[in-house]
Amino acid sequence: MSITKDRLYEIIFEADTKSGKIFDIALLIVIILSILLVVLESVPSIERDYHDVLKLSEWLITGIFSLEYMLRIWIVQKPKAYIFSFYGIIDLLSVLPSYLGLVIVGTHGFMVIRALRLLRIFRILKLNRYIKEGAIIVRALRQSRIKISVFLFAVLTMVIIIGTIMYLIEGGENGFTSIPRGIYWAVVTLTTVGYGDISPTTSLGQFFASFVMIIGYAIIAVPTGIVTVELSKQNSKDASTQVCPNCLADNHTEDALYCNQCGKKLNQTQSLRKK
Amino acid sequence: MSITKDRLYEIIFEADTKSGKIFDIALLIVIILSILLVVLESVPSIERDYHDVLKLSEWLITGIFSLEYMLRIWIVQKPKAYIFSFYGIIDLLSVLPSYLGLVIVGTHGFMVIRALRLLRIFRILKLNRYIKEGAIIVRALRQSRIKISVFLFAVLTMVIIIGTIMYLIEGGENGFTSIPRGIYWAVVTLTTVGYGDISPTTSLGQFFASFVMIIGYAIIAVPTGIVTVELSKQNSKDASTQVCPNCLADNHTEDALYCNQCGKKLNQTQSLRKK
Amino acid sequence: MSITKDRLYEIIFEADTKSGKIFDIALLIVIILSILLVVLESVPSIERDYHDVLKLSEWLITGIFSLEYMLRIWIVQKPKAYIFSFYGIIDLLSVLPSYLGLVIVGTHGFMVIRALRLLRIFRILKLNRYIKEGAIIVRALRQSRIKISVFLFAVLTMVIIIGTIMYLIEGGENGFTSIPRGIYWAVVTLTTVGYGDISPTTSLGQFFASFVMIIGYAIIAVPTGIVTVELSKQNSKDASTQVCPNCLADNHTEDALYCNQCGKKLNQTQSLRKK
Amino acid sequence: MSITKDRLYEIIFEADTKSGKIFDIALLIVIILSILLVVLESVPSIERDYHDVLKLSEWLITGIFSLEYMLRIWIVQKPKAYIFSFYGIIDLLSVLPSYLGLVIVGTHGFMVIRALRLLRIFRILKLNRYIKEGAIIVRALRQSRIKISVFLFAVLTMVIIIGTIMYLIEGGENGFTSIPRGIYWAVVTLTTVGYGDISPTTSLGQFFASFVMIIGYAIIAVPTGIVTVELSKQNSKDASTQVCPNCLADNHTEDALYCNQCGKKLNQTQSLRKK
Repeated sequence: MSITKDRLYEIIFEADTKSGKIFDIALLIVIILSILLVVLESVPSIERDYHDVLKLSEWLITGIFSLEYMLRIWIVQKPKAYIFSFYGIIDLLSVLPSYLGLVIVGTHGFMVIRALRLLRIFRILKLNRYIKEGAIIVRALRQSRIKISVFLFAVLTMVIIIGTIMYLIEGGENGFTSIPRGIYWAVVTLTTVGYGDISPTTSLGQFFASFVMIIGYAIIAVPTGIVTVELSKQNSKDASTQVCPNCLADNHTEDALYCNQCGKKLNQTQSLRKK
Repeated sequence: MSITKDRLYEIIFEADTKSGKIFDIALLIVIILSILLVVLESVPSIERDYHDVLKLSEWLITGIFSLEYMLRIWIVQKPKAYIFSFYGIIDLLSVLPSYLGLVIVGTHGFMVIRALRLLRIFRILKLNRYIKEGAIIVRALRQSRIKISVFLFAVLTMVIIIGTIMYLIEGGENGFTSIPRGIYWAVVTLTTVGYGDISPTTSLGQFFASFVMIIGYAIIAVPTGIVTVELSKQNSKDASTQVCPNCLADNHTEDALYCNQCGKKLNQTQSLRKK
Repeated sequence: MSITKDRLYEIIFEADTKSGKIFDIALLIVIILSILLVVLESVPSIERDYHDVLKLSEWLITGIFSLEYMLRIWIVQKPKAYIFSFYGIIDLLSVLPSYLGLVIVGTHGFMVIRALRLLRIFRILKLNRYIKEGAIIVRALRQSRIKISVFLFAVLTMVIIIGTIMYLIEGGENGFTSIPRGIYWAVVTLTTVGYGDISPTTSLGQFFASFVMIIGYAIIAVPTGIVTVELSKQNSKDASTQVCPNCLADNHTEDALYCNQCGKKLNQTQSLRKK
Repeated sequence: MSITKDRLYEIIFEADTKSGKIFDIALLIVIILSILLVVLESVPSIERDYHDVLKLSEWLITGIFSLEYMLRIWIVQKPKAYIFSFYGIIDLLSVLPSYLGLVIVGTHGFMVIRALRLLRIFRILKLNRYIKEGAIIVRALRQSRIKISVFLFAVLTMVIIIGTIMYLIEGGENGFTSIPRGIYWAVVTLTTVGYGDISPTTSLGQFFASFVMIIGYAIIAVPTGIVTVELSKQNSKDASTQVCPNCLADNHTEDALYCNQCGKKLNQTQSLRKK
């Protein structure tokens, strides 16, 4: 059973064949295990008790990822393009810290870069049907990105002004030691997170804070409204996938019979096939 | 007045007859009392002062539930099917801890299983008209389950990355003793719960936290948008699908008898078939 | 200038005449002042420093309210109906504590009943145009009350089960001293309030709490969805105010030309007059 | 290269010419720098270490703003109108504190007025395309301002009543030292901010608080619903209002050129008139 380069490409980069799917699932499991490893390693008590097991697993996973990385470079047509692509860099960063850890007596933070392995999951997820629904959400967020930017800009302005006022009202003795800290408090309050690590103690401060919270109450409605409207539009757009056979325009309403760009009759088969 | 097995079935399993309804309401009250009992028993001061009353009530309720359980097995046609059904198991778990508590000197946690009695309420609720509205919500949630899964997966990824970054920024001396704790903080922050048991204390940490909160502000909009759109679709599905046989207008209210465009009588079959 | 009983009725109970409006605005101001008084009285430092001013103002306001109450009884046609109506009782409770305070050396809490004066504002608000918009919100909430009840019932069940599990996981030494306290924590968490007075400290507890918060994240979307859909329906219902001149049916779509209940042509004047 | 007054007007007040745009971008950068300066100055450690750099930058920026202010007065046709306009006052307040700081040994709070420079950004933002989307949000909020006012008024009433009840239940020894503090707690709770600086400690208090939180859970849905419905209306207003001159179909997309029902060319006048 000789495995050709083409076949390997199919297995590693694609997911249409059975072996391609098995490869993806295996990789998914290894990635999740590797993330778990990074997370567990950071817990002092676990690191102490299972130091050897963790070390061994780490090298095993690094080995698997290294092999996979080299295979990918070998079988891909344009290795350079892959190496400098987003996923190429992520793949490299997945294994590099372990090797560098041998040379440099690495800082702890350095090893944590491996948490980026998590992003590798998204490559695999490309393949399954969850993507379509995910794409709707992403498209809705992208469509509303200007509205949300405007909103976030307004929130940023409010937060700076509120933070400054609160810094003046409460002052350093109540935890509002500087304007940045006041702004931090304003963000914590306006987003309704409310840690309580800094909170107003003077009467005037509490009055102003109440005012800010009630404002925030009405304001939190805005991003929700934006995204809801956009999602609802995405949904109705989703209904028709017709493409005009004449001019290739594709933004038709579901009940359209004629192309709204060139007036030609639309081919109904695609629409019918859907049912 | 002899009560046949059939009659008992009607009373216990159904709710169309008057006695069936009375049985359901009585059972509802006993269930609520039994839950109250489990809850009150857990309060040290109440347990100490009313130990005997609670003990007695517990055995009374266990007796009622046991009787009901045996009756159900007796009158149902396929006892095995009942016993291993969801509600059959819940019914058994409602009484088992009390009996086992006699044999084993049970741990406290063991007795708390009785809290599952709460789930028995849902059997009774099947009967009333609240179900229809509940079903709409459940259907909307089910329809949006893929979108919500995708969303939750994205949140999970964000939370792991944010938690890891925060663990690096703040470190153990500020409460971020491990990545899992960082992730816990990220969840507490992104969901806007904000206990404040762990909160950033360094300037960089507070800056990053502010950023996370503002991101979370925009992100909280997504599930709301998803569910709203789905609920709104469920709603319009409920609306009338009548088409005027004369002028083919189709935007009628559900209770319309005449076409609102040409005044002709509407064909009611479609509407009737729905019921 | 003799003021008849009828004229007084107009002034006090209605708001169409100029003097009626002036009376309402004057009353509104007195009510707000009286609330402010109750609130300020509760602040120890203010009560100490301005005891006499507060006492005097209180009696002044009690005097005004007493006079108004007696006037209302005198001029209304059916005094008994007024006295036992909702607003009649509120009016009485607005003045009673002050008088009773003379006889009984009243507890502090007793005097706070006067805060109910606040509710008197709603009588006055009946008169202005804000009511129409308020009515839309109230109608939307009323329409969705079954869905919201179902939702709240589901939340209640979840909260009891989550609270019980957390009580088992964390136990009394971490603040979860009883199931009710666990339930309190569950409510605080699921509603994203998150005081942090009780928060999980064990790893398992924090893991479970993270899970609960993420669930709560998706769940908070439901009431918003319900209310949004209902508000949006109210809005489109609002569009047409046509009433069939033949059968008086009033739920027509905005573009309706014929009554959907009896098939008669609709009178378009009302609709046209709107423009 | 002589610069006329007209040309200067174009550069400073308008943004259609290239130099106008460059001026705006330069001003934007200076404003952001000046805000950063005010913020950094408030941090004790930075103020101590970089006192001279901050002082120098402050005077540099004050100089630039002063020059700009004088230029604006000089080139504008009606200087008085400008001076007493909103932006005129903001422009003055941007530089005044620095100069007054020379005369009066100013309090710290006094210098913070310079944070108002932030508002100057909005003048510049007038020019870019983000405005259109921002205008939709603002319009939606303005359209729903009565509904939101009604809602906020209802919340205010609830908050006063809840705060008063909680003050009675918990009392001063648990932090609820006065009704205003109870109201502050009610706002913190109902808006789901939940600092935890004041939180119920008695059983009754926690029970009542749970109730309040669950109510707040349902209530938070209202402003979101209001804004969503309004935003969605704004959106559909934006949509096409074209009607096919041949078959009178009216559900066309905004960019439609041909009727999607009969294939005839659409009359573009209505659409063009919009621009």
